[in-house]
Amino acid sequence: MAKPIMAKPIANPKSIDLNADSGESFGPWRLGDDETLFDYLTSANLACGFHAGDPSHMNQSIKLAKAKGVAVGAHPGFPDKVGFGRRDMTLSYDELYCDTIYQIGALKAFLSLYDMPLHHVKPHGALHHRMVKDRETCEAVIAAIHDVVPDIPLVALAGPGGLLMQETAQRLKLPFVLEAFPERGYLADGRLCPRDRAGASIHDPELAAERALAMSEGYIMSLEGEKIPLKVDTLCIHGDNPHAIEIAKAIYKTLKQAGIALASF
Amino acid sequence: MAKPIMAKPIANPKSIDLNADSGESFGPWRLGDDETLFDYLTSANLACGFHAGDPSHMNQSIKLAKAKGVAVGAHPGFPDKVGFGRRDMTLSYDELYCDTIYQIGALKAFLSLYDMPLHHVKPHGALHHRMVKDRETCEAVIAAIHDVVPDIPLVALAGPGGLLMQETAQRLKLPFVLEAFPERGYLADGRLCPRDRAGASIHDPELAAERALAMSEGYIMSLEGEKIPLKVDTLCIHGDNPHAIEIAKAIYKTLKQAGIALASF
Amino acid sequence: MAKPIMAKPIANPKSIDLNADSGESFGPWRLGDDETLFDYLTSANLACGFHAGDPSHMNQSIKLAKAKGVAVGAHPGFPDKVGFGRRDMTLSYDELYCDTIYQIGALKAFLSLYDMPLHHVKPHGALHHRMVKDRETCEAVIAAIHDVVPDIPLVALAGPGGLLMQETAQRLKLPFVLEAFPERGYLADGRLCPRDRAGASIHDPELAAERALAMSEGYIMSLEGEKIPLKVDTLCIHGDNPHAIEIAKAIYKTLKQAGIALASF
Amino acid sequence: MAKPIMAKPIANPKSIDLNADSGESFGPWRLGDDETLFDYLTSANLACGFHAGDPSHMNQSIKLAKAKGVAVGAHPGFPDKVGFGRRDMTLSYDELYCDTIYQIGALKAFLSLYDMPLHHVKPHGALHHRMVKDRETCEAVIAAIHDVVPDIPLVALAGPGGLLMQETAQRLKLPFVLEAFPERGYLADGRLCPRDRAGASIHDPELAAERALAMSEGYIMSLEGEKIPLKVDTLCIHGDNPHAIEIAKAIYKTLKQAGIALASF
Repeated sequence: MAKPIMAKPIANPKSIDLNADSGESFGPWRLGDDETLFDYLTSANLACGFHAGDPSHMNQSIKLAKAKGVAVGAHPGFPDKVGFGRRDMTLSYDELYCDTIYQIGALKAFLSLYDMPLHHVKPHGALHHRMVKDRETCEAVIAAIHDVVPDIPLVALAGPGGLLMQETAQRLKLPFVLEAFPERGYLADGRLCPRDRAGASIHDPELAAERALAMSEGYIMSLEGEKIPLKVDTLCIHGDNPHAIEIAKAIYKTLKQAGIALASF
Repeated sequence: MAKPIMAKPIANPKSIDLNADSGESFGPWRLGDDETLFDYLTSANLACGFHAGDPSHMNQSIKLAKAKGVAVGAHPGFPDKVGFGRRDMTLSYDELYCDTIYQIGALKAFLSLYDMPLHHVKPHGALHHRMVKDRETCEAVIAAIHDVVPDIPLVALAGPGGLLMQETAQRLKLPFVLEAFPERGYLADGRLCPRDRAGASIHDPELAAERALAMSEGYIMSLEGEKIPLKVDTLCIHGDNPHAIEIAKAIYKTLKQAGIALASF
Repeated sequence: MAKPIMAKPIANPKSIDLNADSGESFGPWRLGDDETLFDYLTSANLACGFHAGDPSHMNQSIKLAKAKGVAVGAHPGFPDKVGFGRRDMTLSYDELYCDTIYQIGALKAFLSLYDMPLHHVKPHGALHHRMVKDRETCEAVIAAIHDVVPDIPLVALAGPGGLLMQETAQRLKLPFVLEAFPERGYLADGRLCPRDRAGASIHDPELAAERALAMSEGYIMSLEGEKIPLKVDTLCIHGDNPHAIEIAKAIYKTLKQAGIALASF
Repeated sequence: MAKPIMAKPIANPKSIDLNADSGESFGPWRLGDDETLFDYLTSANLACGFHAGDPSHMNQSIKLAKAKGVAVGAHPGFPDKVGFGRRDMTLSYDELYCDTIYQIGALKAFLSLYDMPLHHVKPHGALHHRMVKDRETCEAVIAAIHDVVPDIPLVALAGPGGLLMQETAQRLKLPFVLEAFPERGYLADGRLCPRDRAGASIHDPELAAERALAMSEGYIMSLEGEKIPLKVDTLCIHGDNPHAIEIAKAIYKTLKQAGIALASF
């Protein structure tokens, strides 16, 4: 396997994107506070009705994103609402391909009502996890995106953990951008720290903001304190984190002070 | 209420469309024989995943339609698979609007894979029944179609029974075509005979073909044997009727002999 | 139609039941604060997975109810999660009957894990509304309850508004108890004030508590201030009301001061 | 791991059970021909509404089973209708436990309408596959069955392939019976031949009947022609196999000629 796509540290970055999963309400049930969060995000990954979201909430979320100047991407997931798309499922290539087409198409129809372009596609939860490690899943989803919206970038995991996504996108000629997580710890090899290890999650907004700044400057700090070069186009925060708003605010403030604009890619 | 839209008998009709509900399989379950039926149809109303259909079947049905030269329309329905979209539901204007946008968007994404245009929109089952009589439902669905695919015609019920659909489409500036049912009996006022009355359904393929010919010539025969002028752009047969193939064949043959081509509008 | 079942004012009531809809979370989504509410309720109407609830939440809710000494009833609803069972649907008699059997059976299985009896059955939302006015729906649901749990009481609307439910239960030999709403206004004829009229909802916890006391003493106060005799076995508060906890507390306190115990029927 | 539970060849078997998955229709969609198949089965595994089946079909299937003298078992599956419960899913222990309780409870309620006992529990499709190899899944499902219907046997895979199921049932004190497949090839070690190998499936009804006879006599013939002792309590045929009826007839006839009765265990 080829080497991961790692940029040199950028001397003078001008801007970086800040994204979060959004539109995750369903029927009578609310999740996340998109209303407030959208004041800080530059792009939103919108649930498309399979793991969360429904037509009315999709419409409302897009209207809100437009009003707040947030770019909207598709966030397709497994067809599993009760499991919130977080349970692994073994779908066939055809099912993965068609489920992705369907969800993107539905979202695009709502975007067209507001003259908004589709900004990106970022798979959700267990579908994302499977793309990171399973070639067929990765190919099916990327082929679907390519076939239905060939110019729209996939949000791929930055660093060596995202190599399969990055290479597959490259091979299937789908543009992609690279994503990192200021709220997550990283290992010395540039991979995400597994969730069951100490340091996997960062709860302190100031610390998350520091990490975000480093990422916007082209490197990450490993758990061991090493500086690792990592090209990053977009920072992801978790909208369902109870501290999401605080963290978003801290990142916003810290980057602004450093002269780095938050702007969609 | 204004007078129904009724054309004068057409002296020399050249062609008429023949449509049926299609793509109604779901997961492991099959319904209808699209493979054979598509040899006779000129346009197909494809289920979009709410009352029937799923992403993989939608993709397959469109591929099949392309191969057989059948134009594809969207067939949005109520979100009720176990009831097959045939149970009346009271959705809000917003839910009706957004559910319609969602389903059309999903179908369009698959059509784009095959460079096929969306040919028409025809609501399904209980949603159709409600549009025929409930102003809010009618407005919500037609506004949705207009907002997402402004140039794509609604298939509206021909005759006085479809007046609300016809007028609403006209008022909301959505193009529409008129549909009649060769397998159904008609009353002297041009309305469909209620299902619980004798003569409501026509089972004899030859008789259905005769009715289809009359319709293509601009009139219908009422149960009482009266000739009633009725402008018709498309004939609908029921794909889930066990005799659907026979009826389609008989219509095809009868119209051909009369010099009337079957062609999508 | 016979006269509504109205008891004479009870001179010295000893106890009354206080119920609320509960267990309305679904997958990742939370609704209501059962944890706190169960400190005040004496019986809970538990969603059974059709309009809300899922197997894991049903299990958790029952465990919680057992720990807090709350009796558990089944709260069957229409199969419509996105609409939360609040959208009217036209199901056949057979569908109504079988959907009710299914939901009660599923709930009973969880109750058996905790050696808890099924306490009552109370239909939810649009299904309840339809039972109040549609004879076939009323018969189908009551026949189902009777056939699967013949000794378990239906919670029927108290007063003339609930006459169809009361009479049908009586005719089909299903026991029933009578329910009134301390948070709702009542008309002079003992019916609930329609939601779109002034006084339909009571937001002041103290006022709701006063109404609860009157109901426990065998009468209601109409909007016009008239005292109307009304036999009531259980008081219902709305768990999804943001003031539910406050109202429950006020009722609890007021009844206690009046020497009336809250106890399941 | 202990040795598989393998009985010695039975000198004079009196009877064996013949089961098939049933009740797999959903809403408007039909699957399998239970009407005919039930003339040959002695027990049926009924879908419970998660991977297939719905309340109305469950009721109808049980009525039919009663009329034809077929014993009814629960056939719980993953909550995945579009995938028919055949796609692997990673549910938590709690989800597996509660989903199993829910499905069994729902089925039992319908059985109670006909004074029929629950005969057995047999997990479906991908849930069954996972129980065969994943300890946590196996424990969760078996614990659920034990807790809700402690005396009802699990149908476990016969031979070494089913060892995890057999041992877990034994450890958790759930009774179980052993199942083999006359339509499937077996390896020399008593395991099922993987589906992608030659001889995995047997299509000839006569050959399947021969295998069924051998199984009822306490052994199986491996692909290599070896006689392997295998205790078998119930034979399973696939109701969705287009030749299911023919195979059932052939088995019925062959066993009858050999003096072996078909009877539920």
